Amino acid sequence: MARPVVALLTDFGLRDSYVAEMKGVILSVCSVATITDVSHQIEKFNIRMGAYVLACAAPYFPKSTVFVAVVDPGVGTRRKAILIQTKQAYFVGPDNGLLALAAANQGIERVHEISNKKLLLPEVSNTFHGRDVFAPAAAHLANGTPLADFGPETRRISTPSFAKVVKKRNMLTGEVLHVDGFGNIVTNIQKRELDRIDIKETLYIRLKSKLKLSFCRAYGEVGRQRPLALIGSHGFLEVSVNEGNAAEVFKMRSGDKITLYLS
Amino acid sequence: MARPVVALLTDFGLRDSYVAEMKGVILSVCSVATITDVSHQIEKFNIRMGAYVLACAAPYFPKSTVFVAVVDPGVGTRRKAILIQTKQAYFVGPDNGLLALAAANQGIERVHEISNKKLLLPEVSNTFHGRDVFAPAAAHLANGTPLADFGPETRRISTPSFAKVVKKRNMLTGEVLHVDGFGNIVTNIQKRELDRIDIKETLYIRLKSKLKLSFCRAYGEVGRQRPLALIGSHGFLEVSVNEGNAAEVFKMRSGDKITLYLS
Amino acid sequence: MARPVVALLTDFGLRDSYVAEMKGVILSVCSVATITDVSHQIEKFNIRMGAYVLACAAPYFPKSTVFVAVVDPGVGTRRKAILIQTKQAYFVGPDNGLLALAAANQGIERVHEISNKKLLLPEVSNTFHGRDVFAPAAAHLANGTPLADFGPETRRISTPSFAKVVKKRNMLTGEVLHVDGFGNIVTNIQKRELDRIDIKETLYIRLKSKLKLSFCRAYGEVGRQRPLALIGSHGFLEVSVNEGNAAEVFKMRSGDKITLYLS
Repeated sequence: MARPVVALLTDFGLRDSYVAEMKGVILSVCSVATITDVSHQIEKFNIRMGAYVLACAAPYFPKSTVFVAVVDPGVGTRRKAILIQTKQAYFVGPDNGLLALAAANQGIERVHEISNKKLLLPEVSNTFHGRDVFAPAAAHLANGTPLADFGPETRRISTPSFAKVVKKRNMLTGEVLHVDGFGNIVTNIQKRELDRIDIKETLYIRLKSKLKLSFCRAYGEVGRQRPLALIGSHGFLEVSVNEGNAAEVFKMRSGDKITLYLS
Repeated sequence: MARPVVALLTDFGLRDSYVAEMKGVILSVCSVATITDVSHQIEKFNIRMGAYVLACAAPYFPKSTVFVAVVDPGVGTRRKAILIQTKQAYFVGPDNGLLALAAANQGIERVHEISNKKLLLPEVSNTFHGRDVFAPAAAHLANGTPLADFGPETRRISTPSFAKVVKKRNMLTGEVLHVDGFGNIVTNIQKRELDRIDIKETLYIRLKSKLKLSFCRAYGEVGRQRPLALIGSHGFLEVSVNEGNAAEVFKMRSGDKITLYLS
Repeated sequence: MARPVVALLTDFGLRDSYVAEMKGVILSVCSVATITDVSHQIEKFNIRMGAYVLACAAPYFPKSTVFVAVVDPGVGTRRKAILIQTKQAYFVGPDNGLLALAAANQGIERVHEISNKKLLLPEVSNTFHGRDVFAPAAAHLANGTPLADFGPETRRISTPSFAKVVKKRNMLTGEVLHVDGFGNIVTNIQKRELDRIDIKETLYIRLKSKLKLSFCRAYGEVGRQRPLALIGSHGFLEVSVNEGNAAEVFKMRSGDKITLYLS
């Protein structure tokens, strides 16, 4: 049988012992786990960036991978600890939207709260649920513990704005997820929303103002310094400028609204 | 049978090939090892920080984990290479105090020198014992090689100042291990030394001068900008300032002395 | 049977999801692989540095390790994707010289192009062959897929200047591979070229101008601020200055020519 894969994403960095403590806990509960890092260099408390990176990585992992994600500014408050079963994988983390993009892409099947103290570390601190709650829960899940053992099923999970695309008449309204190192504006509007649009068609997109952009396959299909729209390699709509910096040209930042007009 | 876990801590960083060379050696000797990183971003030559991070991580790993730690300014000099068996785990590294905190916390059972050339790489360089001495020794240990095969048992291991807390009459004298990113002053005085002190009692602690502090469970139990003492999440006494920077307020740095007056 | 080791080197960094996507693909194809990082902090597009770090690490890994290396400024152009079988290991990556030093050191036995689409991801992007081509090819190789299944055998692989040492009469001409953090000038001339030269002999080496250097075992064998030549811990000839910065003194950079005069 394939050994279970547990994949970790946090904003803890690699200098301190925090990530290692989580891995130690996971191996203590599930010694056969293959532990893999997604990223530990998410900007501190940047749930949107964590959600984006997790959504980029998740489709490439084996079926039944257990993802543990911890970007958790609300640790110690009432935000719930949850686990999500999708058609492909499991996601464990705080109910703050961090898991929402990756899980929704795979099709959410069930969500449970994590509240059964027997499946957590004996002492749960107020400051480090990554180690005390999420790591042991993920490892028990990797061991095959049934979802119902972790806590009650729940239907409501928090959906932050960056996980929502609103469709209204002929408009799709979403927001900017991420500005990458080249200034490309990555939105939360996904490939499936644009499946009926042909390449080379003109798209009308409102950023700060309304733009008319060519829907391309590659940056080089428009002239230098010319703007374009394309589906990036992770399936999200991007607005870019060929050999230029779209975020600077259009003064857009992570979190800003974007509207796509469908004809 | 559970596969043996080998956990690595170094000051080598992740840019060069050094850590990979150690991992290659470990897998060459013990192909079933699960190798896990603790941290490779210890400040260069900062034994005290390495000892602290190792002591933070070690309690969370499975029984019989082999920790290999290399922060080794004395490489190539006469400092000994040692391995320590504790009640929980094994520690392999230079005898310069790096292993002392983590090992002492678990209860040291036996210490051996690593001197048997048959268990090292065929050529031992003067500059890279991590690869040539500590990695192969750790991997042989993970394979179940008996401690006595590595070299003679020894009783003396070097105990640096940061691993010593001196008790004299009603005073405990220790030192500052680490100043964290928030300015919290982490000392080497551990939870077990304060077990008889109740929460909310007043503690008298000398840093540069003598202070009267409330012994709290959480930062928020005193007013903003007010100092307090508490046991941090890794079991060491900390002096903090609620929403402030204790290290700046009290002008304390790693290595500075601290005295706790017990009543 | 030992589990296959797949070792990764890229210039992708650890912040984004790219390395994780590669690991997810590898585990999807070969669930028993032990995945190990060599480095992901090669300078962007610096093939020479990648080749050097890979050549440093490779000798220490178990027999049959599959190395996947991706520093690939030509991705999406006509440069070939190749796999190399050496006497010790397998190397998978772009045919741009990145694999050349490490593979040549081990003795190249066969080279195949990677062109069989059945062994790649179903959709191959123009921008991320690390995930779409090299990761699945490496994982299939780890599964034992025969080399001939990947594509036609080829005899020509690109050999960049930094992988060539030219012997002409009594002169060896090579170049500077890397200037390390101490200013040591690491050349591409290897130990085996100097096997007949005794320690303490005088070497004549041309950098910007011709120098007369003592061939030493350790930096301290010459006076402070005095230059010397030695074989570094990874088997390459280095020009150094004891307690000084050779690259500054001799104004040498990565890529500069160096000539060694043999008597």
